[in-house]
Amino acid sequence: MFSPLIEDLIRALRCLPGVGPKSAQRMAMYLLEKDRDAAGLLASTLQQAVEKVGRCNRCRTLTEQDVCSLCSSTRRDHSLLCVVETPADVLAIEQAGNYHGLYFVLHGHLSPIDGVGPADLGLDVLGERFGNDEIAELIIATNPTVEGEATAQFIAERARAKGVSVSRIAHGVPIGGELEYIDGGTLAHAFNSRTVL
Amino acid sequence: MFSPLIEDLIRALRCLPGVGPKSAQRMAMYLLEKDRDAAGLLASTLQQAVEKVGRCNRCRTLTEQDVCSLCSSTRRDHSLLCVVETPADVLAIEQAGNYHGLYFVLHGHLSPIDGVGPADLGLDVLGERFGNDEIAELIIATNPTVEGEATAQFIAERARAKGVSVSRIAHGVPIGGELEYIDGGTLAHAFNSRTVL
Ligand SMILES: [Zn+2]
Ligand SMILES: [Zn+2]
Repeated sequence: MFSPLIEDLIRALRCLPGVGPKSAQRMAMYLLEKDRDAAGLLASTLQQAVEKVGRCNRCRTLTEQDVCSLCSSTRRDHSLLCVVETPADVLAIEQAGNYHGLYFVLHGHLSPIDGVGPADLGLDVLGERFGNDEIAELIIATNPTVEGEATAQFIAERARAKGVSVSRIAHGVPIGGELEYIDGGTLAHAFNSRTVL
Repeated sequence: MFSPLIEDLIRALRCLPGVGPKSAQRMAMYLLEKDRDAAGLLASTLQQAVEKVGRCNRCRTLTEQDVCSLCSSTRRDHSLLCVVETPADVLAIEQAGNYHGLYFVLHGHLSPIDGVGPADLGLDVLGERFGNDEIAELIIATNPTVEGEATAQFIAERARAKGVSVSRIAHGVPIGGELEYIDGGTLAHAFNSRTVL
Protein backbone atom coordinates (compact mmCIF):
# COMPACT_ATOMS: atom_id res chain seq x y z
CA MET A 1 0.00 0.00 0.00
CA PHE A 2 2.74 2.49 0.94
CA SER A 3 5.90 2.95 -1.11
CA PRO A 4 8.74 0.44 -0.44
CA LEU A 5 10.79 2.80 1.74
CA ILE A 6 7.78 3.74 3.88
CA GLU A 7 6.91 0.04 4.27
CA ASP A 8 10.53 -0.57 5.36
CA LEU A 9 10.21 2.20 7.94
CA ILE A 10 6.93 0.78 9.29
CA ARG A 11 8.56 -2.66 9.55
CA ALA A 12 11.63 -1.20 11.31
CA LEU A 13 9.46 0.68 13.82
CA ARG A 14 7.76 -2.59 14.77
CA CYS A 15 11.01 -3.68 16.45
CA LEU A 16 10.12 -1.27 19.27
CA PRO A 17 8.54 -2.97 22.30
CA GLY A 18 4.75 -2.49 22.48
CA VAL A 19 4.49 -1.25 18.90
CA GLY A 20 2.10 -3.22 16.67
CA PRO A 21 1.32 -2.70 12.97
CA LYS A 22 -1.19 0.11 13.56
CA SER A 23 1.05 2.14 15.88
CA ALA A 24 4.02 1.63 13.56
CA GLN A 25 1.97 3.08 10.68
CA ARG A 26 0.84 5.98 12.82
CA MET A 27 4.45 6.65 13.90
CA ALA A 28 5.77 6.51 10.32
CA MET A 29 3.08 8.93 9.12
CA TYR A 30 3.74 11.26 12.03
CA LEU A 31 7.52 11.29 11.49
CA LEU A 32 7.30 11.86 7.73
CA GLU A 33 4.24 14.12 7.65
CA LYS A 34 4.46 16.21 10.79
CA ASP A 35 7.98 16.32 12.18
CA ARG A 36 10.90 15.62 9.85
CA ASP A 37 13.31 17.44 12.15
CA ALA A 38 12.44 15.18 15.09
CA ALA A 39 12.69 12.16 12.78
CA GLY A 40 16.16 13.17 11.62
CA LEU A 41 17.26 13.79 15.20
CA LEU A 42 15.91 10.40 16.29
CA ALA A 43 17.73 8.67 13.42
CA SER A 44 21.08 10.30 14.17
CA THR A 45 20.81 9.94 17.97
CA LEU A 46 19.91 6.27 17.63
CA GLN A 47 22.78 5.72 15.20
CA GLN A 48 25.23 7.36 17.63
CA ALA A 49 23.88 5.41 20.59
CA VAL A 50 24.19 2.11 18.72
CA GLU A 51 27.81 2.95 17.85
CA LYS A 52 28.98 4.49 21.12
CA VAL A 53 27.03 3.07 24.05
CA GLY A 54 28.90 0.21 25.64
CA ARG A 55 29.29 -0.98 29.21
CA CYS A 56 30.86 0.70 32.24
CA ASN A 57 34.26 -0.90 32.99
CA ARG A 58 33.36 -1.11 36.66
CA CYS A 59 29.66 -2.00 36.89
CA ARG A 60 28.76 -3.05 33.32
CA THR A 61 25.76 -0.72 33.11
CA LEU A 62 25.02 0.84 29.72
CA THR A 63 27.02 4.03 29.12
CA GLU A 64 29.15 5.71 26.45
CA GLN A 65 31.69 6.58 29.15
CA ASP A 66 34.55 4.28 30.26
CA VAL A 67 33.35 4.47 33.85
CA CYS A 68 29.74 5.52 34.50
CA SER A 69 28.73 8.52 36.58
CA LEU A 70 27.58 6.35 39.50
CA CYS A 71 30.85 4.38 39.71
CA SER A 72 32.90 7.58 39.52
CA SER A 73 30.76 9.51 42.02
CA THR A 74 32.42 10.41 45.33
CA ARG A 75 28.98 10.90 46.88
CA ARG A 76 28.09 7.19 46.72
CA ASP A 77 29.00 4.60 49.36
CA HIS A 78 31.63 2.51 47.56
CA SER A 79 31.51 -0.22 50.24
CA LEU A 80 27.98 -1.30 49.22
CA LEU A 81 27.50 -3.20 45.97
CA CYS A 82 24.06 -4.16 44.66
CA VAL A 83 23.86 -6.87 41.98
CA VAL A 84 20.99 -6.49 39.46
CA GLU A 85 20.01 -8.21 36.23
CA THR A 86 19.48 -5.16 33.98
CA PRO A 87 20.23 -1.41 33.66
CA ALA A 88 16.46 -0.84 34.02
CA ASP A 89 16.72 -2.37 37.52
CA VAL A 90 19.38 0.24 38.40
CA LEU A 91 16.94 2.95 37.32
CA ALA A 92 14.08 1.47 39.37
CA ILE A 93 16.24 1.33 42.53
CA GLU A 94 17.62 4.84 41.94
CA GLN A 95 14.08 6.16 41.55
CA ALA A 96 13.11 4.58 44.88
CA GLY A 97 15.88 6.81 46.21
CA ASN A 98 17.05 5.20 49.47
CA TYR A 99 20.05 3.17 48.25
CA HIS A 100 23.31 5.07 47.98
CA GLY A 101 25.86 2.37 47.16
CA LEU A 102 27.13 1.13 43.80
CA TYR A 103 25.73 -1.44 41.36
CA PHE A 104 26.88 -4.39 39.32
CA VAL A 105 24.80 -5.23 36.25
CA LEU A 106 24.70 -8.86 35.08
CA HIS A 107 22.75 -8.25 31.83
CA GLY A 108 20.82 -11.45 32.45
CA HIS A 109 20.93 -14.46 34.74
CA LEU A 110 22.60 -17.86 34.71
CA SER A 111 20.84 -20.03 32.15
CA PRO A 112 22.79 -23.16 31.17
CA ILE A 113 20.08 -24.12 28.67
CA ASP A 114 20.69 -20.85 26.75
CA GLY A 115 24.44 -21.17 27.18
CA VAL A 116 24.64 -18.24 29.62
CA GLY A 117 27.40 -18.99 32.13
CA PRO A 118 29.22 -17.01 34.86
CA ALA A 119 31.65 -15.33 32.42
CA ASP A 120 28.74 -13.98 30.31
CA LEU A 121 27.41 -12.23 33.42
CA GLY A 122 30.80 -10.72 34.26
CA LEU A 123 31.09 -12.83 37.41
CA ASP A 124 34.87 -13.18 36.89
CA VAL A 125 35.16 -9.38 36.93
CA LEU A 126 32.87 -9.20 39.96
CA GLY A 127 34.91 -11.89 41.76
CA GLU A 128 38.06 -9.78 41.50
CA ARG A 129 36.41 -7.19 43.72
CA PHE A 130 35.67 -9.68 46.52
CA GLY A 131 39.16 -10.36 47.92
CA ASN A 132 40.43 -6.86 48.60
CA ASP A 133 38.25 -5.58 51.49
CA GLU A 134 36.64 -3.11 49.09
CA ILE A 135 33.08 -4.39 49.63
CA ALA A 136 31.50 -4.38 53.10
CA GLU A 137 28.18 -5.80 51.86
CA LEU A 138 27.02 -7.38 48.65
CA ILE A 139 23.24 -6.91 48.18
CA ILE A 140 21.76 -9.30 45.64
CA ALA A 141 18.70 -7.92 43.85
CA THR A 142 18.26 -10.41 41.01
CA ASN A 143 14.65 -11.19 40.13
CA PRO A 144 12.71 -13.64 42.34
CA THR A 145 12.45 -16.17 39.49
CA VAL A 146 13.97 -19.65 39.35
CA GLU A 147 16.92 -18.36 37.30
CA GLY A 148 17.29 -15.21 39.38
CA GLU A 149 17.37 -17.26 42.60
CA ALA A 150 19.92 -19.71 41.18
CA THR A 151 22.08 -16.78 40.09
CA ALA A 152 21.75 -15.20 43.54
CA GLN A 153 22.83 -18.46 45.24
CA PHE A 154 25.81 -18.86 42.90
CA ILE A 155 27.06 -15.31 43.52
CA ALA A 156 26.39 -15.52 47.28
CA GLU A 157 28.52 -18.67 47.65
CA ARG A 158 31.44 -17.11 45.78
CA ALA A 159 31.27 -13.91 47.83
CA ARG A 160 30.96 -15.66 51.21
CA ALA A 161 33.97 -17.85 50.31
CA LYS A 162 35.99 -14.63 50.01
CA GLY A 163 34.64 -13.32 53.34
CA VAL A 164 32.18 -10.80 51.91
CA SER A 165 28.84 -10.26 53.74
CA VAL A 166 25.96 -11.06 51.42
CA SER A 167 22.28 -10.09 51.64
CA ARG A 168 19.24 -10.59 49.44
CA ILE A 169 16.50 -7.95 49.11
CA ALA A 170 13.19 -8.99 50.72
CA HIS A 171 10.37 -10.45 48.65
CA GLY A 172 6.74 -10.61 49.74
CA VAL A 173 3.45 -8.76 49.53
CA PRO A 174 4.04 -5.27 48.02
CA ILE A 175 3.34 -2.34 50.36
CA GLY A 176 -0.22 -1.21 49.65
CA GLY A 177 -0.91 -4.49 47.84
CA GLU A 178 -4.15 -6.28 48.63
CA LEU A 179 -3.75 -9.93 49.64
CA GLU A 180 -6.58 -11.14 47.43
CA TYR A 181 -4.79 -9.90 44.30
CA ILE A 182 -1.35 -11.33 45.12
CA ASP A 183 -0.27 -14.51 43.33
CA GLY A 184 0.08 -17.73 45.32
CA GLY A 185 3.85 -18.00 44.95
CA THR A 186 4.42 -14.55 46.42
CA LEU A 187 1.97 -15.27 49.24
CA ALA A 188 3.66 -18.59 50.07
CA HIS A 189 7.04 -16.83 50.12
CA ALA A 190 5.62 -14.08 52.35
CA PHE A 191 4.47 -16.71 54.87
CA ASN A 192 7.76 -18.61 54.80
CA SER A 193 9.74 -15.40 55.26
CA ARG A 194 7.56 -14.03 58.05
CA THR A 195 9.34 -12.13 60.85
CA VAL A 196 8.59 -12.08 64.56
CA LEU A 197 6.75 -8.97 65.77
CA MET B 1 20.35 9.03 35.80
CA PHE B 2 21.44 7.50 32.49
CA SER B 3 24.52 8.66 30.58
CA PRO B 4 24.09 11.79 28.38
CA LEU B 5 23.78 9.87 25.11
CA ILE B 6 21.18 7.48 26.52
CA GLU B 7 19.23 10.46 27.93
CA ASP B 8 19.39 12.03 24.44
CA LEU B 9 18.01 8.83 22.94
CA ILE B 10 15.15 8.68 25.46
CA ARG B 11 14.31 12.33 24.70
CA ALA B 12 14.43 11.67 20.92
CA LEU B 13 12.13 8.64 21.26
CA ARG B 14 9.55 10.82 23.01
CA CYS B 15 8.89 12.58 19.69
CA LEU B 16 6.99 9.44 18.64
CA PRO B 17 3.20 9.75 19.02
CA GLY B 18 1.83 7.95 22.09
CA VAL B 19 5.28 7.52 23.68
CA GLY B 20 5.63 8.98 27.18
CA PRO B 21 8.72 9.06 29.42
CA LYS B 22 8.26 5.49 30.70
CA SER B 23 7.80 3.91 27.25
CA ALA B 24 10.71 5.93 25.85
CA GLN B 25 12.96 4.54 28.60
CA ARG B 26 11.72 1.03 27.97
CA MET B 27 12.33 1.43 24.22
CA ALA B 28 15.85 2.81 24.71
CA MET B 29 16.77 -0.05 27.06
CA TYR B 30 15.32 -2.59 24.66
CA LEU B 31 17.16 -1.18 21.63
CA LEU B 32 20.54 -0.95 23.40
CA GLU B 33 20.28 -4.04 25.58
CA LYS B 34 18.39 -6.58 23.50
CA ASP B 35 18.50 -5.75 19.82
CA ARG B 36 21.34 -3.57 18.50
CA ASP B 37 20.84 -4.89 14.97
CA ALA B 38 17.21 -3.80 14.89
CA ALA B 39 18.23 -0.45 16.41
CA GLY B 40 20.85 0.11 13.70
CA LEU B 41 18.38 -0.86 11.00
CA LEU B 42 15.74 1.49 12.41
CA ALA B 43 18.28 4.35 12.53
CA SER B 44 19.42 3.87 8.93
CA THR B 45 15.92 3.26 7.52
CA LEU B 46 14.59 6.35 9.29
CA GLN B 47 17.53 8.42 8.02
CA GLN B 48 16.90 7.24 4.45
CA ALA B 49 13.16 7.88 4.70
CA VAL B 50 13.74 11.40 6.04
CA GLU B 51 16.08 12.11 3.13
CA LYS B 52 14.25 10.41 0.28
CA VAL B 53 10.51 10.36 0.96
CA GLY B 54 8.80 13.28 -0.73
CA ARG B 55 5.45 13.74 -2.42
CA CYS B 56 4.02 12.11 -5.53
CA ASN B 57 4.07 14.59 -8.42
CA ARG B 58 0.49 13.67 -9.30
CA CYS B 59 -1.39 13.13 -6.02
CA ARG B 60 1.01 14.53 -3.39
CA THR B 61 0.89 11.41 -1.22
CA LEU B 62 4.10 10.46 0.62
CA THR B 63 6.45 8.39 -1.56
CA GLU B 64 10.11 8.19 -2.56
CA GLN B 65 9.02 7.70 -6.17
CA ASP B 66 8.31 10.56 -8.61
CA VAL B 67 4.85 9.19 -9.25
CA CYS B 68 3.32 6.82 -6.68
CA SER B 69 2.20 3.28 -7.44
CA LEU B 70 -1.50 4.23 -7.29
CA CYS B 71 -1.15 7.11 -9.76
CA SER B 72 0.87 4.98 -12.16
CA SER B 73 -1.39 1.93 -11.90
CA THR B 74 -3.32 0.98 -15.03
CA ARG B 75 -5.75 -1.01 -12.90
CA ARG B 76 -7.23 2.09 -11.23
CA ASP B 77 -10.07 4.20 -12.64
CA HIS B 78 -8.28 7.42 -13.60
CA SER B 79 -11.58 9.28 -14.12
CA LEU B 80 -12.40 9.26 -10.37
CA LEU B 81 -10.42 11.51 -8.04
CA CYS B 82 -10.89 11.46 -4.26
CA VAL B 83 -9.59 14.42 -2.26
CA VAL B 84 -8.36 13.60 1.27
CA GLU B 85 -6.52 15.52 3.99
CA THR B 86 -3.71 13.03 4.78
CA PRO B 87 -1.86 9.96 3.44
CA ALA B 88 -3.37 8.04 6.38
CA ASP B 89 -6.82 8.76 4.91
CA VAL B 90 -5.70 7.13 1.63
CA LEU B 91 -4.72 4.04 3.62
CA ALA B 92 -8.06 3.93 5.48
CA ILE B 93 -10.02 4.14 2.20
CA GLU B 94 -7.79 1.55 0.49
CA GLN B 95 -8.29 -0.81 3.42
CA ALA B 96 -12.08 -0.43 3.08
CA GLY B 97 -11.41 -1.78 -0.41
CA ASN B 98 -14.35 -0.59 -2.55
CA TYR B 99 -12.91 2.57 -4.12
CA HIS B 100 -10.82 2.07 -7.23
CA GLY B 101 -10.12 5.60 -8.42
CA LEU B 102 -7.18 7.91 -7.71
CA TYR B 103 -6.50 10.27 -4.81
CA PHE B 104 -5.33 13.80 -4.20
CA VAL B 105 -3.75 14.49 -0.81
CA LEU B 106 -4.04 18.02 0.61
CA HIS B 107 -1.74 17.47 3.64
CA GLY B 108 -4.10 19.57 5.75
CA HIS B 109 -7.09 21.86 5.28
CA LEU B 110 -7.63 25.57 4.63
CA SER B 111 -6.82 27.45 7.81
CA PRO B 112 -6.35 31.22 7.29
CA ILE B 113 -5.53 31.66 10.99
CA ASP B 114 -2.51 29.31 10.60
CA GLY B 115 -1.60 30.85 7.24
CA VAL B 116 -2.62 27.72 5.29
CA GLY B 117 -4.02 28.85 1.95
CA PRO B 118 -5.02 27.08 -1.31
CA ALA B 119 -1.45 26.93 -2.67
CA ASP B 120 -0.22 25.13 0.49
CA LEU B 121 -2.79 22.39 -0.17
CA GLY B 122 -1.74 22.05 -3.81
CA LEU B 123 -5.09 23.38 -5.03
CA ASP B 124 -3.36 25.15 -7.95
CA VAL B 125 -1.96 21.78 -9.08
CA LEU B 126 -5.36 20.16 -8.56
CA GLY B 127 -7.08 22.95 -10.51
CA GLU B 128 -4.96 22.20 -13.59
CA ARG B 129 -6.58 18.76 -13.76
CA PHE B 130 -10.12 20.17 -13.84
CA GLY B 131 -10.27 21.70 -17.34
CA ASN B 132 -9.17 18.82 -19.54
CA ASP B 133 -12.02 16.27 -19.25
CA GLU B 134 -9.69 13.96 -17.33
CA ILE B 135 -11.92 13.75 -14.25
CA ALA B 136 -15.49 12.44 -14.47
CA GLU B 137 -16.16 12.83 -10.75
CA LEU B 138 -14.37 14.56 -7.90
CA ILE B 139 -15.18 12.90 -4.56
CA ILE B 140 -14.38 15.11 -1.59
CA ALA B 141 -13.48 13.16 1.57
CA THR B 142 -12.06 15.89 3.79
CA ASN B 143 -12.91 15.50 7.48
CA PRO B 144 -16.37 16.57 8.68
CA THR B 145 -14.89 19.40 10.78
CA VAL B 146 -15.44 23.14 10.32
CA GLU B 147 -12.13 23.46 8.44
CA GLY B 148 -12.69 20.26 6.46
CA GLU B 149 -16.13 21.45 5.37
CA ALA B 150 -14.84 24.89 4.37
CA THR B 151 -12.07 23.23 2.36
CA ALA B 152 -14.61 20.92 0.70
CA GLN B 153 -16.81 23.91 -0.27
CA PHE B 154 -13.85 25.81 -1.65
CA ILE B 155 -12.70 22.90 -3.84
CA ALA B 156 -16.25 22.05 -4.92
CA GLU B 157 -16.89 25.58 -6.22
CA ARG B 158 -13.67 25.61 -8.23
CA ALA B 159 -14.36 22.20 -9.72
CA ARG B 160 -17.99 22.95 -10.61
CA ALA B 161 -16.88 26.20 -12.29
CA LYS B 162 -14.76 24.02 -14.61
CA GLY B 163 -17.67 21.64 -15.28
CA VAL B 164 -16.46 18.78 -13.07
CA SER B 165 -19.08 16.73 -11.17
CA VAL B 166 -18.42 16.95 -7.45
CA SER B 167 -19.65 14.71 -4.61
CA ARG B 168 -19.04 14.58 -0.87
CA ILE B 169 -18.85 11.28 1.04
CA ALA B 170 -21.81 10.71 3.39
CA HIS B 171 -21.59 11.46 7.08
CA GLY B 172 -23.93 10.08 9.74
CA VAL B 173 -24.32 7.27 12.25
CA PRO B 174 -21.58 4.65 11.64
CA ILE B 175 -22.81 1.22 10.51
CA GLY B 176 -23.14 -0.90 13.65
CA GLY B 177 -22.97 2.23 15.84
CA GLU B 178 -25.51 2.54 18.63
CA LEU B 179 -27.51 5.77 18.63
CA GLU B 180 -27.09 6.36 22.34
CA TYR B 181 -23.31 6.55 21.98
CA ILE B 182 -23.22 8.88 18.95
CA ASP B 183 -22.38 12.54 19.57
CA GLY B 184 -25.10 15.18 19.08
CA GLY B 185 -23.46 16.83 16.07
CA THR B 186 -23.31 13.57 14.14
CA LEU B 187 -26.90 12.75 15.10
CA ALA B 188 -28.15 16.19 14.01
CA HIS B 189 -26.31 15.77 10.70
CA ALA B 190 -27.79 12.29 10.27
CA PHE B 191 -31.31 13.71 10.69
CA ASN B 192 -30.71 16.63 8.33
CA SER B 193 -29.24 14.31 5.68
CA ARG B 194 -31.99 11.66 5.99
CA THR B 195 -33.03 9.97 2.73
CA VAL B 196 -36.51 8.83 1.65
CA LEU B 197 -37.14 5.09 1.99
ZN1 LIG C 1 29.55 1.93 36.46
ZN1 LIG D 1 0.30 9.59 -6.60
